[in-house]
Amino acid sequence: MSHNTFGHLFRVTTWGESHGPALGCVVDGCPPGLALTEADLQVELDRRRPGTSRFVTQRREPDAARILSGVHEGVTTGTPISIMIENVDQRSKDYGDIARQFRPGHADYAYFAKYGVRDPRGGGRSSARETAARVAAGAVARKVLGEAVSVRAAVVQVGPHRIDRSRWDWAETARNPFFSPDPGVVEAWEAFLDETRKRGSSAGAIVEVVAEGVPAGWGAPLYGKLDAELAAALMSINAAKGVEIGAGFGSAELSGEDNADEMRAGPTGPLFLSNNAGGVLGGISTGQPIVARAAFKPTSSILTPRRSIDEDGSDVEVVTKGRHDPCVGLRAAPVMEAMTACVLADAWLRHRAQTGGASFVPGRV
Amino acid sequence: MSHNTFGHLFRVTTWGESHGPALGCVVDGCPPGLALTEADLQVELDRRRPGTSRFVTQRREPDAARILSGVHEGVTTGTPISIMIENVDQRSKDYGDIARQFRPGHADYAYFAKYGVRDPRGGGRSSARETAARVAAGAVARKVLGEAVSVRAAVVQVGPHRIDRSRWDWAETARNPFFSPDPGVVEAWEAFLDETRKRGSSAGAIVEVVAEGVPAGWGAPLYGKLDAELAAALMSINAAKGVEIGAGFGSAELSGEDNADEMRAGPTGPLFLSNNAGGVLGGISTGQPIVARAAFKPTSSILTPRRSIDEDGSDVEVVTKGRHDPCVGLRAAPVMEAMTACVLADAWLRHRAQTGGASFVPGRV
Amino acid sequence: MSHNTFGHLFRVTTWGESHGPALGCVVDGCPPGLALTEADLQVELDRRRPGTSRFVTQRREPDAARILSGVHEGVTTGTPISIMIENVDQRSKDYGDIARQFRPGHADYAYFAKYGVRDPRGGGRSSARETAARVAAGAVARKVLGEAVSVRAAVVQVGPHRIDRSRWDWAETARNPFFSPDPGVVEAWEAFLDETRKRGSSAGAIVEVVAEGVPAGWGAPLYGKLDAELAAALMSINAAKGVEIGAGFGSAELSGEDNADEMRAGPTGPLFLSNNAGGVLGGISTGQPIVARAAFKPTSSILTPRRSIDEDGSDVEVVTKGRHDPCVGLRAAPVMEAMTACVLADAWLRHRAQTGGASFVPGRV
Amino acid sequence: MSHNTFGHLFRVTTWGESHGPALGCVVDGCPPGLALTEADLQVELDRRRPGTSRFVTQRREPDAARILSGVHEGVTTGTPISIMIENVDQRSKDYGDIARQFRPGHADYAYFAKYGVRDPRGGGRSSARETAARVAAGAVARKVLGEAVSVRAAVVQVGPHRIDRSRWDWAETARNPFFSPDPGVVEAWEAFLDETRKRGSSAGAIVEVVAEGVPAGWGAPLYGKLDAELAAALMSINAAKGVEIGAGFGSAELSGEDNADEMRAGPTGPLFLSNNAGGVLGGISTGQPIVARAAFKPTSSILTPRRSIDEDGSDVEVVTKGRHDPCVGLRAAPVMEAMTACVLADAWLRHRAQTGGASFVPGRV
Repeated sequence: MSHNTFGHLFRVTTWGESHGPALGCVVDGCPPGLALTEADLQVELDRRRPGTSRFVTQRREPDAARILSGVHEGVTTGTPISIMIENVDQRSKDYGDIARQFRPGHADYAYFAKYGVRDPRGGGRSSARETAARVAAGAVARKVLGEAVSVRAAVVQVGPHRIDRSRWDWAETARNPFFSPDPGVVEAWEAFLDETRKRGSSAGAIVEVVAEGVPAGWGAPLYGKLDAELAAALMSINAAKGVEIGAGFGSAELSGEDNADEMRAGPTGPLFLSNNAGGVLGGISTGQPIVARAAFKPTSSILTPRRSIDEDGSDVEVVTKGRHDPCVGLRAAPVMEAMTACVLADAWLRHRAQTGGASFVPGRV
Repeated sequence: MSHNTFGHLFRVTTWGESHGPALGCVVDGCPPGLALTEADLQVELDRRRPGTSRFVTQRREPDAARILSGVHEGVTTGTPISIMIENVDQRSKDYGDIARQFRPGHADYAYFAKYGVRDPRGGGRSSARETAARVAAGAVARKVLGEAVSVRAAVVQVGPHRIDRSRWDWAETARNPFFSPDPGVVEAWEAFLDETRKRGSSAGAIVEVVAEGVPAGWGAPLYGKLDAELAAALMSINAAKGVEIGAGFGSAELSGEDNADEMRAGPTGPLFLSNNAGGVLGGISTGQPIVARAAFKPTSSILTPRRSIDEDGSDVEVVTKGRHDPCVGLRAAPVMEAMTACVLADAWLRHRAQTGGASFVPGRV
Repeated sequence: MSHNTFGHLFRVTTWGESHGPALGCVVDGCPPGLALTEADLQVELDRRRPGTSRFVTQRREPDAARILSGVHEGVTTGTPISIMIENVDQRSKDYGDIARQFRPGHADYAYFAKYGVRDPRGGGRSSARETAARVAAGAVARKVLGEAVSVRAAVVQVGPHRIDRSRWDWAETARNPFFSPDPGVVEAWEAFLDETRKRGSSAGAIVEVVAEGVPAGWGAPLYGKLDAELAAALMSINAAKGVEIGAGFGSAELSGEDNADEMRAGPTGPLFLSNNAGGVLGGISTGQPIVARAAFKPTSSILTPRRSIDEDGSDVEVVTKGRHDPCVGLRAAPVMEAMTACVLADAWLRHRAQTGGASFVPGRV
Repeated sequence: MSHNTFGHLFRVTTWGESHGPALGCVVDGCPPGLALTEADLQVELDRRRPGTSRFVTQRREPDAARILSGVHEGVTTGTPISIMIENVDQRSKDYGDIARQFRPGHADYAYFAKYGVRDPRGGGRSSARETAARVAAGAVARKVLGEAVSVRAAVVQVGPHRIDRSRWDWAETARNPFFSPDPGVVEAWEAFLDETRKRGSSAGAIVEVVAEGVPAGWGAPLYGKLDAELAAALMSINAAKGVEIGAGFGSAELSGEDNADEMRAGPTGPLFLSNNAGGVLGGISTGQPIVARAAFKPTSSILTPRRSIDEDGSDVEVVTKGRHDPCVGLRAAPVMEAMTACVLADAWLRHRAQTGGASFVPGRV
């Protein structure tokens, strides 16, 4: 990962500001011969789109993606795929008051300190609006991975309220505005977020992503470990403050014998009796589902007044109006899927490069 | 990060297996004119060295680092610095029993599935012994960062036993074999680890790293965000299963107003009233201490028998003899410092490249 | 350089096909605070633009560049600069006859063999039309280099007709349609190219680029040598078949004493008595003008029938109608400037990263 | 290519100075399962070794390569292969006189200007001795390419004396100390080089490398074009000043119809009727032999006195004693083979990554 490009072979470069004319990405290194249309992108973008419930920002963006290159007659050609999404509902005047102020907890000050200049409209480059480009790229990555690999995310905690994992049902994630796999928690989240929004505050969340169907052998140790790349990809999402794989932080409290996922012989490799590893050992996939979670802090743009300074170095009190997500973590679910799909597509191409692409099976080498 | 190299401008390539003749690294892109001797490396390597207490592996390795290039008359020349550490206390026969077995929770099976061939002696490339090369590189990175930046790590949890943060004293980390900043917890950890070791088990741990003196402005958003690169670097350490920055996973439960670190005007930028951000906002350093934590799972090489399979695909029961760390997380403290120092040195060079290296100060632009 | 991105810190990603809706580039890593407008790009694009004389393709493209991101109120922000140029004068039906044929000497067959699918309209991705994106990026690179560094190119040979170097005048390059620095050769080139065009043939050319004002010390040996990166950048231009630095291939015939550029003490470093090195020694700039030449083969799209095969594997005879440059080397002059400017901007940022950016002066260290 | 690493997937990092204790390389990304021994490296290193005739430097180096990692029981494991070659015949006192002087035409001054510090013994890092590491890496690359691909180089010009191409016989290159494929030119080269050496001068050379058996489809346009990467790789060799592919600079004088290599239908793709392209079109291999040439300037270390300056900025007269190649281009032949093999191995892995590795055949898609 470097500047605004990530990936080694399946490489995604994103560009664009929240209130600029457009944003987009260039997906390079995509294999040729894959069927790809703008509709394939749109279905994913629609899941991340703002303005769809009262729990997300009210900005109205169609997020219509145009493919400008790299696809000929509905098929990828192996050349760079340029995707553009026009911004249509900017309201830069919303930002008049805070154009020269630094919102506490926001990237405002850090961008100023680094560059000495910034586009303050809607957070400029640091806006979560950029994640639309990631989602578009993720839709391409899914084509590379094919039908055999599924990548799904669900919100598992909002503020202090956690789901009941025994009620997990993937189908539920499409039936509520929270990507919750547990229908039983929805009412509590609604109440919590309504209350949070009304008092001018915001809330954090934890999101879990699961990739199933990934064969054993993907990942490039030691510094391109699959979990290291996944950690970087998820941590690069706006507001992410933590990432864990499998049992994650909980593994620190397990005993060696409880943590180690035992195996029995199966027809095409080991059958694992548990998945504390989250599908990755030594930076390489094991064939088990890859499971990762990320923690998202509360949105920093809130109505409650906060102490800060401005570009002149003077003390100010910041109140952020405008349209903002009360819980940015909610919309992180499709973004986590996209980033995970991109990391996996890249890992797959690299694995195919070095080894030819197969997984070695015990007893058959 | 890619294969066995990490960093963009300050680039570290490591090589070597646990039971090969040697291991080492090549540090490329180091600025010229820095004083550097083998003694500078040794002081860091000695902190990570095995065999220093009954709580770490009993393998006896002097870990003597030789500088083979890139330094002339005690000064870096800007050319690649090759560092070699010879292995002297390999006992490959210890691995006779498990040469064809896959230890549950270990990288054994994953390496086999990816490559079809592996060096089983001591875990080969996946051994934590490789981290000696990281520590050597980290010592070079410290020279790049200079005296103004300090990077220190401490173990904050072993198994279920956490430190009392109110007793934090950095000086204590050098006075006990656990890198604990809290002397009050040492007795409990001793008892817990002795008991763990005696029953043939192992334990996990959580380690915290703090970098102080980092100016505002380091980090290259969006995909080279300082926290994203740090997450990858820490997650690439053996046995790491989770990484968090600042308030980390806890931030998901904070309200927007509690999470956002308020600011007041100070002489050279903002004075922050809290540090939930862990020193990074929008992927860029803020001038506050950078605080990260990583969770390490229990060592997978244990004496307690575990069910598994072997290279023939047959069911086996694995008992790992040999010499192993009962809690690999302990020795991760100097490794986390090294990885953090390398990430920061790289971020510093990249910041200097793009902007000239200064931080912009509100009121003075 | 990798796929469709080049540069390490000043990174350019290009996208687009000859007959797609648009083409463009993303320039990442640009320093902040530089004045940049679309007019800055246009002045360079207009020099490369087709349709300006009878000696270049008659396709009429305004090549109007739009900046979509990375610039706020006329100043670069340090975030990625996305530039888009819409295609307006595609005539894809011109390619009907050769849509399934491989033009001899063209990339047609190679793209087919690699990808199994290609966009045949106007050469698709392999079209020289892509170089518009390079020229736009080069205009940004010039801003990074500043006024002190000039990068200029001139055509020094068309077919077998060479300029008389004793008549070299940079101002002349803007006064004839051939970028010739020698007004005396223009008439001969006109006659030669008119004759070439009339008989349905095409011609090659040699172009020289000179960068003045580059301080000593740029370049990152050994594998990022300034001349190695320049060689790759120039060889990546369509139709380039050779690159040389300074005395180039001629240096093979020089004696050691004639080749070595002698030095005398000057006020800020050596005064060189000759420049056979072309401004680069050991991969590092010496402070002398950087001089490189590239050879361009004749355009492969010609009216003269040539034997070939088609996508069915059948023998065919190819006649390429459509609109083509009779001597693609002519329009390579602004492209060579752009590529050289990009390589230098990248080298400058990398030099600043590793060393702080100064050149060391003998007698003053 | 970046600093001291080249390649994207098959990555080579070299280190070491001419008079340091050792030099070497780390080859990362090598596929697993390849048979590889130190003897495989030695056969290539012996071809580049100094001291084998009066036409090369008299330094006596066995160039014995040790493999320190990445190979287990004679087979590559997919982990980094560290190779070390100890220096045994340094005579640093030879350099006493020129320790603070800049040899005209040498990298001495450029390294000083960049870094402010340098290892002057034997040219330090800029010495051609580093190419031993490249040759070792090239031997690994040959294993990746397998038997079907051959990479051979020959010297085709020494000073002004060219071979007669009609007498080309690859077997001859092993029968004379000049890597000449034309036995008829050997006597003239002997006389020329003896005379050159006796008058304290040095000579340049042109070397041609030919890779046969490369299938169509390798190369990653636009900025990882096979010829662009080859140009960078060859230009990175010490003393190289020019690189050309196929007809190269001569193509500028060809007509469009003469230059374009015609095709007829063959059993597995086109049969080409000529090879002006040198096996590469649009940056992608065509299945024809890949043919490249590089020009090497005369060695800059000569006995004839030359005017220069020293580190104090004073005028001096430089006479270079010590042991030097009178024609460094001679020993470039095995180095060119090595660099070409590395570029091809990398291209092969990248092609396999993106497409699966096959070449599409007209009539069979």
